[in-house]
Amino acid sequence: MKFSIQKDRFAQSVQDVLKAISSRTTIPILTGIKIDVTEEGIKLTGSDSDISIESFIPQEEEGKILAEIEQPGSIVLNARFFNEIVKKLPLDRIEIEVMNSFQTVIRSGQSEFNLNGLDPEEYPHLPQIEEREVFKMPTDLLKTIIRQTVFAVSASETRPILTGVNWRMEDGRLVCIATDSHRLAMRKAAVETDSDAEYNVVIPGKSLNELSKILDDTKEPVEIVITDSQVLFRAKHLLFYSRLLEGNYPDTSRLIPTESKTKLELNTKEFLQAIDRASLLAREERNNVVKLSVIDQDTIEISSNSPEIGKVTEQVKSRSVEGDELRISFSAKYMMDALKALDGTEINVQFTGAMKPFIIRPEQDDSTLQLILPVRTY
Amino acid sequence: MKFSIQKDRFAQSVQDVLKAISSRTTIPILTGIKIDVTEEGIKLTGSDSDISIESFIPQEEEGKILAEIEQPGSIVLNARFFNEIVKKLPLDRIEIEVMNSFQTVIRSGQSEFNLNGLDPEEYPHLPQIEEREVFKMPTDLLKTIIRQTVFAVSASETRPILTGVNWRMEDGRLVCIATDSHRLAMRKAAVETDSDAEYNVVIPGKSLNELSKILDDTKEPVEIVITDSQVLFRAKHLLFYSRLLEGNYPDTSRLIPTESKTKLELNTKEFLQAIDRASLLAREERNNVVKLSVIDQDTIEISSNSPEIGKVTEQVKSRSVEGDELRISFSAKYMMDALKALDGTEINVQFTGAMKPFIIRPEQDDSTLQLILPVRTY
Repeated sequence: MKFSIQKDRFAQSVQDVLKAISSRTTIPILTGIKIDVTEEGIKLTGSDSDISIESFIPQEEEGKILAEIEQPGSIVLNARFFNEIVKKLPLDRIEIEVMNSFQTVIRSGQSEFNLNGLDPEEYPHLPQIEEREVFKMPTDLLKTIIRQTVFAVSASETRPILTGVNWRMEDGRLVCIATDSHRLAMRKAAVETDSDAEYNVVIPGKSLNELSKILDDTKEPVEIVITDSQVLFRAKHLLFYSRLLEGNYPDTSRLIPTESKTKLELNTKEFLQAIDRASLLAREERNNVVKLSVIDQDTIEISSNSPEIGKVTEQVKSRSVEGDELRISFSAKYMMDALKALDGTEINVQFTGAMKPFIIRPEQDDSTLQLILPVRTY
Repeated sequence: MKFSIQKDRFAQSVQDVLKAISSRTTIPILTGIKIDVTEEGIKLTGSDSDISIESFIPQEEEGKILAEIEQPGSIVLNARFFNEIVKKLPLDRIEIEVMNSFQTVIRSGQSEFNLNGLDPEEYPHLPQIEEREVFKMPTDLLKTIIRQTVFAVSASETRPILTGVNWRMEDGRLVCIATDSHRLAMRKAAVETDSDAEYNVVIPGKSLNELSKILDDTKEPVEIVITDSQVLFRAKHLLFYSRLLEGNYPDTSRLIPTESKTKLELNTKEFLQAIDRASLLAREERNNVVKLSVIDQDTIEISSNSPEIGKVTEQVKSRSVEGDELRISFSAKYMMDALKALDGTEINVQFTGAMKPFIIRPEQDDSTLQLILPVRTY
């Protein structure tokens, strides 16, 4: 194996596949990046066996030569060292050559590294995804969907299924739900598809977070293929595989109230900042709980009280307050997470009582919903 | 006590004095910021009893009203909470009022905080510094001196005196030295002074680091007063007190070689980058040691070898190589620290043998010197 390549493009690909590689793996070969060189170009692979990422650099792109292939072949190199080395090489052009017994020489200018490589035959095969139904969405929409849901997955392994985001496809419409059983985030989106296949799968939150970091904010479509145990996201020159979580996702539809007894219309930013201030004193003693009280037809009050430190109150204008009076307590963190996930300057908050889950939606947009369970404070 | 003040200026002062406050203090009153309000303005104080910082905001500055004083007085408020609160208040103007039993109200717009304050009478008095001899230097020079020396102090408490930087004043010239007994950094500078007082004190490295963070990069003079147990740095509206370390600083003058057997002239950046690359493979197994070998009259080689991972070699051009052949090993980290501390694009490195300390200086500038002890590798 021998080739030379443009450094920055190569370093970016190394960086991308590195996201799949865990430093804590117990399988030595998975600490490596696999490099496969063919006449077409250079393919890099990283995997922790849950997530696998492939990045491809074509030999030529838009009439520009990116890589010069002298001899095809494969090698596996320690990912962490290789990444550091590539980033710090002195020149814009680097040359990589495999010698005897997987010894690999990396040259750039006067700098010459000699790395002990591993046998590429030992590298596990990536999941085989049969080309079945494919659906598509723009990259930026995919990133938005992830951002609006994944924060609400459970951080605890007590119920492993809740560490993932439930993706259901029904009638050409994708419904994504995440919940840690204290709050819930839901996002619906239309997708492009030729088939009428229905899916109901759970994608690990960690996988979606890593995917989101790699993808650029473009309108370019991402193709998505779902099988029984795997999901594949295919962007330009990039394949991202994740295993799916096993088990049935709980039915959350009954959790979402259909009526409301008190309804507020609030400016997202003003409300978020008031919650943020009230939470300052609530962080330690009281598990970050703040109180919301309806004062009159256009005012609510946010407050928090920590006997040892002090208390805070703040009145916030509401464009309208409909329905019953209300005093309710909830986690400031959950509320801030929910408000940050919503796009839109005005939101509706709908309550059905101080002990019932309440929902937050952007005005005039029912594709997104955030739900929070209140906290009992007496 | 009651006053109102412009938020950003106040927040900056809070941030400055916060640098003296330790979250791990066992003295409850020192978790607080002391606020003293007089007709002249507002003084903030933070202290961990080693470092004390005072920041003053005048009632008026350059014809602009910064604060409106309604009633003078003092209070001590929990520093961490107070800092967070001030930063997040909604309006540009904030009002602070002390009520009964140290209850303190902080108002801005619709937001009202009520903090439990502490008795200002319990706050320890700052060290009394008698106005003795004062010397001055521009703020940016002071910051440069700190940057060029403080990194070389010892991180270990085995010899506490080595955790500080030795400041000696002789003949109107300041000599600053730091060493952890494996390397040494020295910087000399002329200072402005009316007296012929001589000093020989040791300032804790931590104090100098914190001081450097607070000072802006300006040419404004900083006044320095040294007593037997304290040093005071006085900038505009800012007082920074530090205790001095007790004990005698070791005599390091004999450590610095006066002759040289091999002398290199190198480009600082090229040399630094080659060391950085060579250190990539040296980090784990071999305590970050790299090797330097003289190849011929205008070339040296930097190399490193970690049997498990691989090896690296790189040739670096030297503008001149004078004297004996040489192969020497040293810590890449110490070398990179030293090179980053030197100003100047070209440096001299002078060796007196593979087992002797060697020195690094900028070309044509003897105000700075870095010394490193080599590592025995056989």
